[in-house]
Amino acid sequence: MSNLAEEGQLALLIGSRGKRFIVLLRASDALHTHEGIISHDHIIGQPWGRIVRTQLGKPFLVLEPSTHDLILHVRRQSQIVYPKEAGYILLKMNVYPGVRVIEAGSGSGGLTIALARAVAPLGRVYSYEHRPDMQRLAIRNITQLGLQEWVDFKLKDIAEGFEETAVDAIFLDVRTPWHYLTQVGKALKSGGFFGSLMPTTNQVSQLIASLEAHHFFNVEVEEILLRAYKPVAERLRPADLMVGHTGYLVFARWIPEAPDRDESKDHNKV
Amino acid sequence: MSNLAEEGQLALLIGSRGKRFIVLLRASDALHTHEGIISHDHIIGQPWGRIVRTQLGKPFLVLEPSTHDLILHVRRQSQIVYPKEAGYILLKMNVYPGVRVIEAGSGSGGLTIALARAVAPLGRVYSYEHRPDMQRLAIRNITQLGLQEWVDFKLKDIAEGFEETAVDAIFLDVRTPWHYLTQVGKALKSGGFFGSLMPTTNQVSQLIASLEAHHFFNVEVEEILLRAYKPVAERLRPADLMVGHTGYLVFARWIPEAPDRDESKDHNKV
Amino acid sequence: MSNLAEEGQLALLIGSRGKRFIVLLRASDALHTHEGIISHDHIIGQPWGRIVRTQLGKPFLVLEPSTHDLILHVRRQSQIVYPKEAGYILLKMNVYPGVRVIEAGSGSGGLTIALARAVAPLGRVYSYEHRPDMQRLAIRNITQLGLQEWVDFKLKDIAEGFEETAVDAIFLDVRTPWHYLTQVGKALKSGGFFGSLMPTTNQVSQLIASLEAHHFFNVEVEEILLRAYKPVAERLRPADLMVGHTGYLVFARWIPEAPDRDESKDHNKV
Amino acid sequence: MSNLAEEGQLALLIGSRGKRFIVLLRASDALHTHEGIISHDHIIGQPWGRIVRTQLGKPFLVLEPSTHDLILHVRRQSQIVYPKEAGYILLKMNVYPGVRVIEAGSGSGGLTIALARAVAPLGRVYSYEHRPDMQRLAIRNITQLGLQEWVDFKLKDIAEGFEETAVDAIFLDVRTPWHYLTQVGKALKSGGFFGSLMPTTNQVSQLIASLEAHHFFNVEVEEILLRAYKPVAERLRPADLMVGHTGYLVFARWIPEAPDRDESKDHNKV
Repeated sequence: MSNLAEEGQLALLIGSRGKRFIVLLRASDALHTHEGIISHDHIIGQPWGRIVRTQLGKPFLVLEPSTHDLILHVRRQSQIVYPKEAGYILLKMNVYPGVRVIEAGSGSGGLTIALARAVAPLGRVYSYEHRPDMQRLAIRNITQLGLQEWVDFKLKDIAEGFEETAVDAIFLDVRTPWHYLTQVGKALKSGGFFGSLMPTTNQVSQLIASLEAHHFFNVEVEEILLRAYKPVAERLRPADLMVGHTGYLVFARWIPEAPDRDESKDHNKV
Repeated sequence: MSNLAEEGQLALLIGSRGKRFIVLLRASDALHTHEGIISHDHIIGQPWGRIVRTQLGKPFLVLEPSTHDLILHVRRQSQIVYPKEAGYILLKMNVYPGVRVIEAGSGSGGLTIALARAVAPLGRVYSYEHRPDMQRLAIRNITQLGLQEWVDFKLKDIAEGFEETAVDAIFLDVRTPWHYLTQVGKALKSGGFFGSLMPTTNQVSQLIASLEAHHFFNVEVEEILLRAYKPVAERLRPADLMVGHTGYLVFARWIPEAPDRDESKDHNKV
Repeated sequence: MSNLAEEGQLALLIGSRGKRFIVLLRASDALHTHEGIISHDHIIGQPWGRIVRTQLGKPFLVLEPSTHDLILHVRRQSQIVYPKEAGYILLKMNVYPGVRVIEAGSGSGGLTIALARAVAPLGRVYSYEHRPDMQRLAIRNITQLGLQEWVDFKLKDIAEGFEETAVDAIFLDVRTPWHYLTQVGKALKSGGFFGSLMPTTNQVSQLIASLEAHHFFNVEVEEILLRAYKPVAERLRPADLMVGHTGYLVFARWIPEAPDRDESKDHNKV
Repeated sequence: MSNLAEEGQLALLIGSRGKRFIVLLRASDALHTHEGIISHDHIIGQPWGRIVRTQLGKPFLVLEPSTHDLILHVRRQSQIVYPKEAGYILLKMNVYPGVRVIEAGSGSGGLTIALARAVAPLGRVYSYEHRPDMQRLAIRNITQLGLQEWVDFKLKDIAEGFEETAVDAIFLDVRTPWHYLTQVGKALKSGGFFGSLMPTTNQVSQLIASLEAHHFFNVEVEEILLRAYKPVAERLRPADLMVGHTGYLVFARWIPEAPDRDESKDHNKV
């Protein structure tokens, strides 16, 4: 990546009171804040990590945003998949450059960001959503970040099935993922990665039972807790409050040519 | 990715008792196991998710390994960076296709795998190590996975500085990261991402103090806990034992043109 | 308590390799260890915190055991209630001197120890168990600690009901606590404390549903995680492994004169 | 304990919107709430677990408060020791009926409640505080709960030493516990229990180093995390937010007749 901020790149602007903005840099464009206006032209072509000032003289620090920043700054109408889970999902479901991955629903597009960035420039994200308003939001969020090139948005109830076949991975962030495992099996390539995120233990139990009934293999349930510390050298301590729960992650592999039951049980002993 | 296992791809073979092997598929090559021999030719050109048998008739399930699998199966002589941290590091330090990132030390190459897969096909990982034996191991591990194309291994004490400039991100997995912040500053581009992983609170305190003294910005300390569940639908519960600690993650941004102290303090209030 | 070790008191003996023994001090009695014999008479009448030696000259440190020590050193044939939960149960279920409390099953007597010590000298523990072998073990464990004075052991299936009425608190450490709520209601005084510990989420769901159907009030579900650190001043860090799960605690109050449903819901909003 | 609410007992009153009051029942006394007045006489002599109404007809549920309730409802001017730690401290430091225990500082009296209830009717709590305003608050809180009989409040800087000798246990909830270990050694009986609670890792490191220098034995550092669940049978899940940190617990035993260094090290290997 470039040492200088360039047109078409994303910029994170942090005001003096910690207020944060993320913009896609475009010549002649401007960011309007409560502390004044910043012209993109004052950023483009300049090194990252500098202070720019609004016409009112208010300072903003200009940084490249991380994928983590992008996810957390998404305009949201629904619970998002947090970076602590999104990063783990990428490694666990083998999402890397060139991969074709389906997600449903699009939600606010938080996970879509992580997936799109990970599969670019050769892979593809197919993002399903049945609510038009949610899809509009996701498209808007992804487009504002310039990631639309790697994402196909589909307005569709996944009960009707996915349009792709032989994709590498499918992630379901829906209320009743166990309802769609037949559809998953048709769209996922043999041996492909399945993942899901659910808030309740009851959902996890139902999904596990369905995965087993549908010949999914190597079912794993995991939970990730992130604990932030107050970064003070001489008084190091965890933050007073932490997020107590986002959701349970469930992963499995799709093995259509099912080995016989007992053999599969053995294979599961990992 | 392909629906069929192809030459040059990685394959995960799981035996009937859960024994796992990861191989780079090459025509005419063979995997020797305690349950017999498997010819790669029986895998290449076939769909994933199938059972192959050794010449003794023992079944192995053939799957694409995930990045998670690759990291955990690395031959190691040192503590590795686990997937729960590696995935988070990717999002937090903005490691995605095209990025140039430095890591030190190479260690057993666990994090190198995650970084190399994330930056390919256009980016680059510069992996520093001062112990020849560790470097040999890392090179061997990375080469066996076919990832060497994206990694430059450097046998060098980082106290002497890094050879690159203006890289996007630097991750230090060393005992005393606070000793190398000047070197980090010279190699990292303005606004670039700094990260480190340390096992003790004393190290974290020392690093925080040094980061502040070296005008790093937005210092964050975080810890990730992974809790696995027994995936039994009617008796869902966490596993009896869990990993209690891998390390503390510290992240910061490098801002050489430091805003004045008070202003920077304000910017930190996020 | 006395400054000197006295007959009738418990003593914790720690050998040079960390081997621990707990004994009830009795004149002329002796402890036989692999490192030799220690006469109780060498302990009785002496200050705590001293080294005594076996006839072979091997040193043992003599300390008063804590309730925590007693629980962990119980001879067990079943999962015990750990001190992290036992201490919390005491405060949450209001178990203090003078209280009458029922527990079922007796198990190995781990929780019995905490309860007996907490209610003495005026209260009472009624400990139910239907398996004769488990009861024998619990009686043996409690008697060896000299706590039998405060415990009534009952060999009985609690499906047949408890023999007491108007007790202050009932704790069920059984597989299907939801089967016994009618019996609990008959034995517990109005407003009394109910508690239970279960390993699986499915059990918790079933118990919650039953508690609501039986007009229990203020149902709470909690989980306690204990994280040990390596106590090294200059390298402070959590232990590598931790207990990932012991069980879910469920607490509720018994309100037979049930306020009407909606009102009760309001009362629950705490 | 009695089946009926009696004069001199504590009562927990819960209003229809969850508002909670704790009162010491006294004939002719009354509780004034925003929803009207409740005469204690309407509670005294009645069973627990009933609804009483204010003169305005507003319902309140009347329950015995648990020690947990008492601690959380204390009027506070400082961070309190929470029940999750207080219960564990009781078991770990062997605080049970008859024990003599010192605590410093008194703070708001939260831990004092747990200690006083645990040592009654024969033991004693010596509660030190050097700030007159904090002591007044602690005395007020303890007296309102009727627990003053078991507590001696001392207005004194503990740097000057404790007035007791040969106490069973000493708990320091102060900022710099390592400054007072000589004083602790003089007041604690040989083999006695030492405990402390501190928010930062730096404090823990300093205390560990001092404990070792003062011949304390079996130093342990632990942390307790409490995770609450939403008690909904068909949608069981952890609460969204949790307390991320209260403090680190440090425990040790006081062994004045120190075994030689190496021997003590061996004894520590538990």
